Amino acid sequence: MARAEYPEAVGALVGELKRLPGVGPRSAERIAIWLLQHPRAEPLALAEALHAAKETVISCEVCGFFATRESCGICDDPKRDAAVLCVVEQATDVLPLERSGAFKGRYHCLGGKLSPLDRVSPEDLRIPALISRIDAARDIEVILALGADVEGEATSNYLADLLRGKDCRITRIAQGLPAGGGLDHADELTLMRALEGRRAF
Amino acid sequence: MARAEYPEAVGALVGELKRLPGVGPRSAERIAIWLLQHPRAEPLALAEALHAAKETVISCEVCGFFATRESCGICDDPKRDAAVLCVVEQATDVLPLERSGAFKGRYHCLGGKLSPLDRVSPEDLRIPALISRIDAARDIEVILALGADVEGEATSNYLADLLRGKDCRITRIAQGLPAGGGLDHADELTLMRALEGRRAF
Repeated sequence: MARAEYPEAVGALVGELKRLPGVGPRSAERIAIWLLQHPRAEPLALAEALHAAKETVISCEVCGFFATRESCGICDDPKRDAAVLCVVEQATDVLPLERSGAFKGRYHCLGGKLSPLDRVSPEDLRIPALISRIDAARDIEVILALGADVEGEATSNYLADLLRGKDCRITRIAQGLPAGGGLDHADELTLMRALEGRRAF
Repeated sequence: MARAEYPEAVGALVGELKRLPGVGPRSAERIAIWLLQHPRAEPLALAEALHAAKETVISCEVCGFFATRESCGICDDPKRDAAVLCVVEQATDVLPLERSGAFKGRYHCLGGKLSPLDRVSPEDLRIPALISRIDAARDIEVILALGADVEGEATSNYLADLLRGKDCRITRIAQGLPAGGGLDHADELTLMRALEGRRAF
């Protein structure tokens, strides 16, 4: 007697789903079964969306955010302030900043952060493109909006060193208490940074 | 200034991913971005797997497990014992039982369990097909292998009532301590069932 297995096509689908970030073998199986059995599942619509996204979406050559072949929603917007450039790690960091409503300038996505452990060195980031943008502009403000983790800090320091002497002001986003967070839940490092960064009231 | 958004095709992909079970809005965004940006991502392979699975995989009309249009790996296996029929809730319950290696018979997937709250009544389950199979056989053993939750119990009781008087023996899988579990971690109901189901040593 052969031990029963899913048909090959199900196995292949589970295999592809398992490769997605945050999807383990169990979830992959659960999703595959759902896609094939649930009346509201639309596997072909998902397949179509994958095709369409793969075909039409590219990285903007200027800012690194998602763009279509025709245009980049950020770089092509004349209402954005060309005198402020916000440097972020990933294209996915742009929308959270946009949702805050506090930034009206342009972005530059590095495509990662320096991390020797993951073998990410300066050559792997979009740093030359950043320098050309700064060189091409005059007296702009470069806001470093990288993460507050070790690699983010290292990347910020590296960029600050690199940009010193250029015709730009370098700032960085504040570190401190998160909104809604009490002092009792903040760790020592956060409180230290919050104290260091205190402002006149 | 328009607030930046992902290109439409990315939004559509996130929308489809968000519909998958266990994938929330954040994970959907994360998966979509990974699919579009990661060098090892293969969105078109996933799309292809979805197409292939949707096109080739069906539910076996006899047992309800996954089958291709040509054959059902379980029903078409002549080495399986036709005198034992294991009734499970879902097609996904078959592989765990197969992996246990303790069952060599055939299966019948009900496609769910009785659950008035979710409006699942006997008509929604593959019960007529089960009765035809039992009527067509002689002196078979029907093993009820449904879950040990309230709905699983209700479904087992309903089926036991329905099958009484037919030419079949009805059994159910044991409830008790899970393998590797100590008494200190077992709840009262599990211990009660374990005591009730005690066997000669």
